[in-house]
This record gives sequence, C-alpha cells and structure tokens, in this order.
Amino acid sequence: MTRPAETRQRIISAVLRIIGDDGVAGVTNRRIAQVAGVSLGSVTYHFATQQDLLRASMLHFVDCETRHFGELAKQSQTGSADLEKVVELVREVANTVPQDSERIAPYELYLHAGRDPELQDAASDCFTAYDKLAATVLTALGVPDADKVAGVVVGLIMGMKLRALATGSGTTDDLVDGLLMLVKGAAAGSEGPRNP
Amino acid sequence: MTRPAETRQRIISAVLRIIGDDGVAGVTNRRIAQVAGVSLGSVTYHFATQQDLLRASMLHFVDCETRHFGELAKQSQTGSADLEKVVELVREVANTVPQDSERIAPYELYLHAGRDPELQDAASDCFTAYDKLAATVLTALGVPDADKVAGVVVGLIMGMKLRALATGSGTTDDLVDGLLMLVKGAAAGSEGPRNP
Repeated sequence: MTRPAETRQRIISAVLRIIGDDGVAGVTNRRIAQVAGVSLGSVTYHFATQQDLLRASMLHFVDCETRHFGELAKQSQTGSADLEKVVELVREVANTVPQDSERIAPYELYLHAGRDPELQDAASDCFTAYDKLAATVLTALGVPDADKVAGVVVGLIMGMKLRALATGSGTTDDLVDGLLMLVKGAAAGSEGPRNP
Repeated sequence: MTRPAETRQRIISAVLRIIGDDGVAGVTNRRIAQVAGVSLGSVTYHFATQQDLLRASMLHFVDCETRHFGELAKQSQTGSADLEKVVELVREVANTVPQDSERIAPYELYLHAGRDPELQDAASDCFTAYDKLAATVLTALGVPDADKVAGVVVGLIMGMKLRALATGSGTTDDLVDGLLMLVKGAAAGSEGPRNP
C-alpha cells in the first residue's frame, strides 16, 4: 500500500510531465491518474480543484530547484567568494538540463498564471525563492545592492534559458557573459553615475 | 468576397488568439475557421500543416513587433543618443501591453518550439530580429560591443516580461534598472577587467 505523501508526490510529478508534454490544457484528472498510476479518487482526494493542483506543482518545482541550486551555491562559497566561482555556478545552472518536458513545464505554469490570477501568488513565491538564492550568491561575491541586482539576474537567466529552449541552441557562454556584465554594471553603478 | 491575403491574415490572428487563450493544444482547424470566420477549406488551403501555421504565426508576431519597436527606436534617435532616450524607449516597450491573450501567445509558441524542432528556425529568426533592433539602439548609444550586448538585453527583457506576466506585477522600473546595469557593465568591461 502506498503512503498518502507518496501518492501526492506521484500525482505532482505526473502533472509536471503532462504539462511539459502538452501544456496546461492537457491536464485532466483521468490522465493524471493514468500517468501517476493512481486511482481517479486519489487525485480528487489530494487536490480538490485544478488550481490547487497547478499551484502545488509550481511550488514543488521551485522547491526542488532552490534546494538543488542552494546546495550548489553553498559549495561555491569557500570563504572569499569571487567571480570565477560564480561563473562555475552559472555553468552548473545552465547545464542542468533535465528532460525536455521537465524544462518546459515551469514556463507553461508561469504563462498559465498570466491567464489565471489565482496562480499568481504561487508564481510570486517561486520568483521570490529564486531572488533569495541569487541575492545570497551576490552578497557572498560582495556585489553592492545585492537584493536589487538579484531580481535582474533572475530575469536574465529566465529569459536566456527560454531562448535556448525555443531555438534549440546552447546558452551557457552567453549567460555567463550577461551575468558578468550585470555584476560589473552593479559595481559601476554604486560608484556613481557613469555614462558609457 | 475576401481577398486571399486578408483571409490568410485573419487566420493568423485567430491562431494567435486561440494560443493566447488555451495554448498551442487548443489550435484545431475547426476552431480557427470559427474564430476567423472563414471556411474550413480556407484554413487548409492557406496552411497545409499545423507547423506551417504555427511558424507563420510566430513570424507574423515578430514582424509586427519589430516594425513597431523599430519606429520607436527611430523616434528616439535624435542626433546624439543618450541613456535618458533609451530609458524612454524601454518604458514604451514595457508599457506596450496588448490584451492578455496576445501577450501570452508568443511565449506559448517559443515553448512549443522547445517540443517541436521544426519550429526552432522560426524562433531563431524571431530572436535575431529582436537582437538586430537592440543592437541598433545600443550602437546609437555608443555602447561598445553592441552586437554582443544585444543578445543579453533581449534575454533580460524577455525574462522580466515573463515574470511580470506570471506574477501580475508591473516591471517597468525593474527593467529600466536592469538595462542600465547591463549597459554600464558593458562599458566597464571594455575598459578592462574589473572585479567588484
């Protein structure tokens, strides 16, 4: 017999897989039950509404990601942080390429939040978690205004990974270049206004 | 009687609306015909496969965008370009908020290209068009290595607009801050390595 927590987890994993394959429109209770290998009743028992389900899936995804990247970040902090270390970290992040459907699912969820305001709080929680992680790394690097720069870093990573996904191209070097530009710009900004 | 070019255009607009509302999975010939107000035969006459249709829709969207932003960029170039001018341009770009479904459609198409390699060339063409526009503005601003910085700028705008969409929040100020950071960083980079 399967424990409830395990069933719940299997349902969430199934949802992420279905969304990655066919978008949010492909998510039906029947299909979830089939992909997760659980009964139809289990799905409705664990998640009363589709919004509950999508919200939980989004938060689960970001939870995994922040745990994974948080550990990478910790490994990269060896007393005095420097740019080389962060370049290494970014390479790791950029190269973390799970299966295609898993890469696509979170983006589908973010887009769906654009249609369904009930999901926007969960989306905000996701971005806040990414911001926090970025701010930790930036602070360790001695970047001024780390909190402010963090949101920009997260936006840049998001956009460049979407581009890599859409065009089927690698992005690691471009991403590293972009982040170094940002970090330099943040440092330059703290020294007063500079017109290029 | 409707001219073929007009029919084709109505079909493309219908596709973008359907994708915005329900994702790529919602696109069927029957629904396109209904939304566009054309016959089912017209849809298959103009677009033999769904890939043709999605590719044409993606390219049409980026064509409109580059024309629109290209004009904005031209208006912003008054002899000597400066950062204030670009801040104005970015505000315009960030505030160009069409209806929700129209904002979402291009992202859905990019994600779908992640699943369907046949669409990746069209996606690359879109990003190249954005890059070119960004490079033009950056060059006018006197930013060194404008071509290289352009790709990063496009990624940043993409990511931050996705975030704004997902969280339902405004993004203009953050976007302007981020772009200024990038431009400063690019200028600092050209003066030799600087550790923050």
